[in-house]
Amino acid sequence: MSMKHLPVTNLGVCAARSPQKFSVRKHDDGAHFVADNTRIRFNTEFTPGAPEMDDICFEKAGPRARIFFDPATVRAAIVTCGGLCPGLNSVIRSVVMEFHFNYGVKEVTGIRFGYAGLNPANGYEPVMLEPDRVDEIHNDGGSILGSSRGSEKPEIMVDYLVSRGINILLCVGGDGTQRGANAISKEVARRRLPIAIVGIPKTIDNDIMYVQRSFGYVTAIEVAREVLDSAHNEAKGAPYGIGMVKLMGREAGFIAAGATLASQHVNFCLIPEIPLVIGGPHGFLNFLYKRMVGRQHAVIAVAEGAGQDLFASASGEHDASGNIKFQDIGLFLKSRISEHMASAGLPVNLKYFDPSYHIRSVPANCGDGILCDLLARNAVHAAMAGKTDVLIGLSNEAFIHVPIAEAVARKKRLNTAGDAWRAVLASTGQPEHYSPA
Amino acid sequence: MSMKHLPVTNLGVCAARSPQKFSVRKHDDGAHFVADNTRIRFNTEFTPGAPEMDDICFEKAGPRARIFFDPATVRAAIVTCGGLCPGLNSVIRSVVMEFHFNYGVKEVTGIRFGYAGLNPANGYEPVMLEPDRVDEIHNDGGSILGSSRGSEKPEIMVDYLVSRGINILLCVGGDGTQRGANAISKEVARRRLPIAIVGIPKTIDNDIMYVQRSFGYVTAIEVAREVLDSAHNEAKGAPYGIGMVKLMGREAGFIAAGATLASQHVNFCLIPEIPLVIGGPHGFLNFLYKRMVGRQHAVIAVAEGAGQDLFASASGEHDASGNIKFQDIGLFLKSRISEHMASAGLPVNLKYFDPSYHIRSVPANCGDGILCDLLARNAVHAAMAGKTDVLIGLSNEAFIHVPIAEAVARKKRLNTAGDAWRAVLASTGQPEHYSPA
Amino acid sequence: MSMKHLPVTNLGVCAARSPQKFSVRKHDDGAHFVADNTRIRFNTEFTPGAPEMDDICFEKAGPRARIFFDPATVRAAIVTCGGLCPGLNSVIRSVVMEFHFNYGVKEVTGIRFGYAGLNPANGYEPVMLEPDRVDEIHNDGGSILGSSRGSEKPEIMVDYLVSRGINILLCVGGDGTQRGANAISKEVARRRLPIAIVGIPKTIDNDIMYVQRSFGYVTAIEVAREVLDSAHNEAKGAPYGIGMVKLMGREAGFIAAGATLASQHVNFCLIPEIPLVIGGPHGFLNFLYKRMVGRQHAVIAVAEGAGQDLFASASGEHDASGNIKFQDIGLFLKSRISEHMASAGLPVNLKYFDPSYHIRSVPANCGDGILCDLLARNAVHAAMAGKTDVLIGLSNEAFIHVPIAEAVARKKRLNTAGDAWRAVLASTGQPEHYSPA
Amino acid sequence: MSMKHLPVTNLGVCAARSPQKFSVRKHDDGAHFVADNTRIRFNTEFTPGAPEMDDICFEKAGPRARIFFDPATVRAAIVTCGGLCPGLNSVIRSVVMEFHFNYGVKEVTGIRFGYAGLNPANGYEPVMLEPDRVDEIHNDGGSILGSSRGSEKPEIMVDYLVSRGINILLCVGGDGTQRGANAISKEVARRRLPIAIVGIPKTIDNDIMYVQRSFGYVTAIEVAREVLDSAHNEAKGAPYGIGMVKLMGREAGFIAAGATLASQHVNFCLIPEIPLVIGGPHGFLNFLYKRMVGRQHAVIAVAEGAGQDLFASASGEHDASGNIKFQDIGLFLKSRISEHMASAGLPVNLKYFDPSYHIRSVPANCGDGILCDLLARNAVHAAMAGKTDVLIGLSNEAFIHVPIAEAVARKKRLNTAGDAWRAVLASTGQPEHYSPA
Repeated sequence: MSMKHLPVTNLGVCAARSPQKFSVRKHDDGAHFVADNTRIRFNTEFTPGAPEMDDICFEKAGPRARIFFDPATVRAAIVTCGGLCPGLNSVIRSVVMEFHFNYGVKEVTGIRFGYAGLNPANGYEPVMLEPDRVDEIHNDGGSILGSSRGSEKPEIMVDYLVSRGINILLCVGGDGTQRGANAISKEVARRRLPIAIVGIPKTIDNDIMYVQRSFGYVTAIEVAREVLDSAHNEAKGAPYGIGMVKLMGREAGFIAAGATLASQHVNFCLIPEIPLVIGGPHGFLNFLYKRMVGRQHAVIAVAEGAGQDLFASASGEHDASGNIKFQDIGLFLKSRISEHMASAGLPVNLKYFDPSYHIRSVPANCGDGILCDLLARNAVHAAMAGKTDVLIGLSNEAFIHVPIAEAVARKKRLNTAGDAWRAVLASTGQPEHYSPA
Repeated sequence: MSMKHLPVTNLGVCAARSPQKFSVRKHDDGAHFVADNTRIRFNTEFTPGAPEMDDICFEKAGPRARIFFDPATVRAAIVTCGGLCPGLNSVIRSVVMEFHFNYGVKEVTGIRFGYAGLNPANGYEPVMLEPDRVDEIHNDGGSILGSSRGSEKPEIMVDYLVSRGINILLCVGGDGTQRGANAISKEVARRRLPIAIVGIPKTIDNDIMYVQRSFGYVTAIEVAREVLDSAHNEAKGAPYGIGMVKLMGREAGFIAAGATLASQHVNFCLIPEIPLVIGGPHGFLNFLYKRMVGRQHAVIAVAEGAGQDLFASASGEHDASGNIKFQDIGLFLKSRISEHMASAGLPVNLKYFDPSYHIRSVPANCGDGILCDLLARNAVHAAMAGKTDVLIGLSNEAFIHVPIAEAVARKKRLNTAGDAWRAVLASTGQPEHYSPA
Repeated sequence: MSMKHLPVTNLGVCAARSPQKFSVRKHDDGAHFVADNTRIRFNTEFTPGAPEMDDICFEKAGPRARIFFDPATVRAAIVTCGGLCPGLNSVIRSVVMEFHFNYGVKEVTGIRFGYAGLNPANGYEPVMLEPDRVDEIHNDGGSILGSSRGSEKPEIMVDYLVSRGINILLCVGGDGTQRGANAISKEVARRRLPIAIVGIPKTIDNDIMYVQRSFGYVTAIEVAREVLDSAHNEAKGAPYGIGMVKLMGREAGFIAAGATLASQHVNFCLIPEIPLVIGGPHGFLNFLYKRMVGRQHAVIAVAEGAGQDLFASASGEHDASGNIKFQDIGLFLKSRISEHMASAGLPVNLKYFDPSYHIRSVPANCGDGILCDLLARNAVHAAMAGKTDVLIGLSNEAFIHVPIAEAVARKKRLNTAGDAWRAVLASTGQPEHYSPA
Repeated sequence: MSMKHLPVTNLGVCAARSPQKFSVRKHDDGAHFVADNTRIRFNTEFTPGAPEMDDICFEKAGPRARIFFDPATVRAAIVTCGGLCPGLNSVIRSVVMEFHFNYGVKEVTGIRFGYAGLNPANGYEPVMLEPDRVDEIHNDGGSILGSSRGSEKPEIMVDYLVSRGINILLCVGGDGTQRGANAISKEVARRRLPIAIVGIPKTIDNDIMYVQRSFGYVTAIEVAREVLDSAHNEAKGAPYGIGMVKLMGREAGFIAAGATLASQHVNFCLIPEIPLVIGGPHGFLNFLYKRMVGRQHAVIAVAEGAGQDLFASASGEHDASGNIKFQDIGLFLKSRISEHMASAGLPVNLKYFDPSYHIRSVPANCGDGILCDLLARNAVHAAMAGKTDVLIGLSNEAFIHVPIAEAVARKKRLNTAGDAWRAVLASTGQPEHYSPA
């Protein structure tokens, strides 16, 4: 077996001693510091006797005993990009607190409205983030900085950093945002500037590689479960009732699957990873028909990215983040189900729920709040140690340094041969596949 | 001043002694019983010296020392009609418990799917409701019996009651349902049958006359507030963000107003009682434009019944309950706002929320749970005392007997000169009126 | 019948025109203002033909078209006293907003830590309350001002008001606090100062006269219900399990009764209004024993003020508010139940819950949030109109002006012959009374 | 490096083909089945160049293509032991559903009140668990089966299994329970009976080895956070206020640490892993004194197992599970803090919260609900495959088979050199250690 290390870029020699409080105590042998060559292996599953597969490993995140930046000279900034996600304010808060209290960095700037705030032409003045200002924000949804989709030219953004004297930039966002962070890093490197760019992964869809669980996800399924339970009540509350809930998940069905397992009342969970066939004897509509004949009610959870190939032609449109604009699978199914059942002599009462904006704007629950805190503090550690073009990942419950280019090379998908999907099949009783014949 | 009593119909002489436990104890002087001639006056506001206005009063609800029905001969039934509403299962549970434990009535039947379940042609078999079956249901949303809109012919429904030997029918529903109960009562009276028909008012819109607060309403505003808070987060989370939430309220703005007061983050609360003018210098769009220029974000709560006169021609369609089908004011405003702001050079990020199905399907909160319990028990008391064609109302915190015909003669509207609306104006800062010029 | 009006004190002639926005619009005939002679009658129940009882009526609260204070000269202050209660921050917020936006009063001061903050000797500097400072506080429990029990000498407090130029003081608290406000009012009157003292009733126990429902109460029963449900789970989760929850309620059982109705899983609800007898065949322990033999588990909700006469001698101690220190009925019952059941050969698993500090510190729910908003705004209206020595009450869903001395003359008790207690008896199946023999 | 495999016991040859639905579909190559020799390595951290440490690995859990038991002959039973924990009903439900729908096992028996229910002398009759009976229970706290501490003689319990024909027993509980399961396994092995004993780990303290996250834990910290927030409100709500919350955690501080990170308002988090010194210049009381002087309020989270060495002599008592009875550190600290601060001239307002019974009895949140579902289904898979004396563990997000004896050999402790504790130190600002001088 060969073990490949995925190294991250360092800005230079770490000459300064970390001011972390626990480093200066008597009898302190530095146990709290993480050595720079500590590694976390990615794969843990193997079969004895089988040919060994290549494996990869990552640097372990955490505070370093020696750091690159002198705290007295640090001007840090944080920017939140893309759609809202539970936990953004928790991340902002813990970043400010860690910089302030543990590294003695007094100047942390909040960039407004995503990367747009890094282009002076947009006129969004940044805000100073003091501990008092952020002390209570972790209990609120949204982002006190605002957010936006899309990016700006790297040259303009780096000019902005230079003009403001910012030498650490933390970029909170999904793969589009991290591509932007990667582009900023390249421009910074081209100019040989001592500026650290560190990514904090944010994807309510939970689909970033090397991030075993992203913040906002468990909060999202908590709210999604409540909506599924309402859908269940509507389904049972009317003759031939169907409750259908569209959930987030453009390319991965984690939210739909997680909420299905939490609710246990879903009969069909449709995700992007399983091709959706509508018609025919082994198509979705016929399975649904049989369910309605047998049990008179049904609950459907559909990920927004499911069944996109059903649409005659993709719209070809992209949103400001560069994502392809999806057709609305929920409205499509609502219409097709109603028609099909009516023509089959089984007129249904279909209630359709589209709670995505609500879900993504609620405050983080405890699981996510803790995750945000740890991601944020590890991002500060990485930046202070001069790591750059790096994203804080989570693998086997260890926080790791992932080169941004590796993290965005492909997206994480739900393993349809794994425990969770097997449990979804067991809980729903739905077919494994849909096929036209 | 003349005080007009609105009497309810009695099936006949109350000859039986109530088996309520508290009536048979030593030293019990019957304080728990309510005398049949106790009255509750409706109006409480007056101006000394001013000409006195006519007033009305109602019978006070509650257990009577002497009752009409012999518990041994009672076959009771309960039916839930119309849209779902938090608290339906609480009502069902307390009805069963009161009949069973306090009156010794062992047979309580649950009719499935509203009045449709009273027509054998629909084939919905009723269920027996035992205490064990209903013991935990008050913590669930929906209705274990199911519900449906629309009515059946009174003759058919009365035939059904007779064929099953049912002599008490409790009808849980809104004004359409109560009209149905009134029709059943008339048919029962025509046939001179000793069957009591008692209504339990259910309107999430809170718009039934002589029902000061209907169950489900405070639960609804609790969830609506959460969604408004999400809308607030979305509005502040994007450049020129607007969060707009459509809430229930066909003819009355109670939910929109209540949720606005609870949230305190709404800038425009649009209700059916205040005519909506879109264009012009004193129209809604211009007020919104000024808000966006001044503060860069806004939250809008719009009742589904607001601005219906804006639509060129009403659809003329009715739903199964006989309600006029409304045009979707939310989608209309979403489109008009986006166009208007874009053409005014202020492109907005508008997020639209339509949470009605979710709101109406959640479990009842404590306030509603208690209200359901008291309504249900008073409905059982009324029925056992032989009251019929009567609805349990709530006036000045007293439960009352309201003749159904009086209750459905007109709908309750939000008093736009009262405390609540004044506080909405104060909290939102919105204009009192919209006018075209 | 004679109708007695309970008038409130006015500081003087209302010469100024109210700056409330809705008063200056075209076509506005002042509908939003409340005439000073509008009355709300207190009693609504009567029996035709019976001798009429004396009745009382109150001034209706609300904005007056003419006010006493010139907003430009107002320096307002607010103080929160006694134990914490859900909704305190909502009250503070709405007071600030109403003064600021609707009356143009820019200076609202927050007194720290109750009446202690009105004595300079304690060294608690007040805080300025600006709209930005209070904008989000209604979602937090506690009081941003802090609170304390006890009072200070009226002379010292009035000296403080005079030294700071404060001419409106809003006192949020229970009957001890309102007695303090009354004392301040008297000292103000003695000095003939134009200072308005207005009380906002705060009692989580819900026991202030002429306040039909006080803020914090429904939030309290919401949390209490959750704890009762946990107690129910513990009771059913062990052999011969008993879950006992001590709830607030020194002299009135509103919280215990409300939470019992909301939970529907309580078997014994013990309140101060019903004397508690422990031993003997008709004592509590024997009823509990029978329940345990019959059903093997039980849930008990006990108000802190229940059974105080059981203690051999009262402690005679008082807390800083002047309340008699109660013996702990919960611990007493826990011990007595365990002993009794063990000696009866039925050793029980008793889990005891004492959640009062948690309950009183949570954020207000919607029902309470709205109530706080309306109380706060009406208190501001009263003060601006020059009303003094007055408390904002609630009667028959109308906000009223209650002379403080009348409000504190006696406490409200739960009506054990009314709907709620009758429903508690029905839901629990508990005996009406306990007697020694 | 040597990799040691920790094998589990198999009852015998797996001759039967699994009836899992997904195994019989076209194009199905068995991807959903887990090969019996698939391994999960435990350690993932390493340092290149350093001497390699010994490592261990476990069997991966999941459905096997060939199983030991013929479903037609299986009589399964489930028993829940020890204290209540959020998620017990979710486990019960998913066990029943997996047996019933995926393996066709129709007879699943629920043992009442823990191991006590396996001794006929106690007279607890078991209940049959049908899908309809358990369909809604996952939304309820507690255990529908009840629970108890302590064990029974293995001979008696095995006699019971034999007499009832039970050949699969799932034991849900903590390390005491698993020791009991191990003893049953040994007795079963001694008699050479084909009975599978499978453990499902339950520890709200999260302290079982090889179980990276146990069910109930995240729900517990969710409720604990709410209580900490109330404590924070109480602390800020009174002059020199202190809110102190005792939380679960006999030997490990996971709940106290997790709730501290979620709340971010805790100033001292006291856990069993860090020795507690009360007095002296570097003792807890002096640190607390400094905090009170500096900030005037404080929040303390204390695990029940913290500071047990402070007590002059341990009580020596054990509870029915064999746990040493702890002295109450919360009451001890409450008294010591009050005395110390008073004598230091700083009388504090200390509010003490003890919410453990409430926390452990609430329903599971989504994260725990999903975990319960997966644990339960994997336990059924293990049992059907004839695994015995095994517990379902979780390592690196993979479910594993852990020999029970290994799992109970020692307890998991919070790593005080890891991310979470480092973040606790950062968030609280508390000292790393307490020392007497």
